[in-house]
Amino acid sequence: MELDMKEAFPKENTVKASVLLAHPYEKSLNHAIFQTICEKLDELKVGTFAHDLYAEKFNPVMTRKELGTDQSEDALVNQYAEELMASEFLILVHPNWWGQPPAIMKGYVDRVIRPPYSYDFPPGVSGGGIPIGKLKGKTGIVFNTSNTEESRENAIFGDPLEDIWKNCIFGFCGMDSYYRKMFRVVADSDRDQRIMWLKEAADIIEHAVKSYPD
Amino acid sequence: MELDMKEAFPKENTVKASVLLAHPYEKSLNHAIFQTICEKLDELKVGTFAHDLYAEKFNPVMTRKELGTDQSEDALVNQYAEELMASEFLILVHPNWWGQPPAIMKGYVDRVIRPPYSYDFPPGVSGGGIPIGKLKGKTGIVFNTSNTEESRENAIFGDPLEDIWKNCIFGFCGMDSYYRKMFRVVADSDRDQRIMWLKEAADIIEHAVKSYPD
Repeated sequence: MELDMKEAFPKENTVKASVLLAHPYEKSLNHAIFQTICEKLDELKVGTFAHDLYAEKFNPVMTRKELGTDQSEDALVNQYAEELMASEFLILVHPNWWGQPPAIMKGYVDRVIRPPYSYDFPPGVSGGGIPIGKLKGKTGIVFNTSNTEESRENAIFGDPLEDIWKNCIFGFCGMDSYYRKMFRVVADSDRDQRIMWLKEAADIIEHAVKSYPD
Repeated sequence: MELDMKEAFPKENTVKASVLLAHPYEKSLNHAIFQTICEKLDELKVGTFAHDLYAEKFNPVMTRKELGTDQSEDALVNQYAEELMASEFLILVHPNWWGQPPAIMKGYVDRVIRPPYSYDFPPGVSGGGIPIGKLKGKTGIVFNTSNTEESRENAIFGDPLEDIWKNCIFGFCGMDSYYRKMFRVVADSDRDQRIMWLKEAADIIEHAVKSYPD
């Protein structure tokens, strides 16, 4: 994958954000959060690469060929990767399915967040060694929805999503900053509650962008 | 999905196992583990439903239509689900990618392990309530491969795979028994080490099957 940033991204001083959504239902709360975030980013003059993975029919299955190389033959994979490199913010919106993202978003991680762009091994260090995170300076923000009460989530399931995003993905790649918000319990929520959640999502984005270092 | 078990599975008294593999490289250690397990299950006269998800081109993306219903239009999804219902053992083989299974196996969980067959909500209880696990009596066994040292895995990443399979998936569905084995560090292993690992995988299967209640 050649990253011809000059051509793809004319030099601008604006902050940029990659925003990814994974939910199969276009009237879901996840879609509303995604739309609210994108509108807020526009309002804040943040350059936004916004993608509804379902709508774009992203293929989450990493190929055999992608295993041993930095090349992908999938144009979407390369596009998302270039955008991620150019972004200060990586913002993800997905429901909690089995303590994990839906498969389509897991595939974004598998295929797009790859060496040598997002992490790499120092010369002479094997795949069993300790890699270098290469997403330094970037901020990760995750919005989740859940149908499990917080007390049950923490006591029985241990909230693996927190560990997955914070440590296994963002931390692994050396990202500087991380924020995650879980909205729950969606199945039992009414319209007023959902409107408050959308307002909260917008506020989180506004705070993150405004406090981002110049 | 109609589960016509009589037709699909003639009455037999043999124990059965669903075995799923998720790895893109056909010469991977994961493939060797999968093959070793299947051979051992055959030797033990266990009826085996063995699937290489990559080879079968399983589509891991849950559809909009599958969200609100117990129907799937994907023949593979229905087949895997019927086989899971008929199996005493669910055996999974996959590498540790970002503290999670590869997307193609996450999609097996998203699409195949579904209500009302694997879990369900009591009458009158909403999607925000506590579900009933319906995979009681079954045993889950997970074989993982990793390129991360155990000390680093536990200290920095917290081994979310343990929580995911044990609590979020098998526990959620009421499965009775669980065993997981992580083989590491694969990138630094030699042939002798790998042969020992395959022997260990076979021993784990033999022990599990022989100690399964009649």
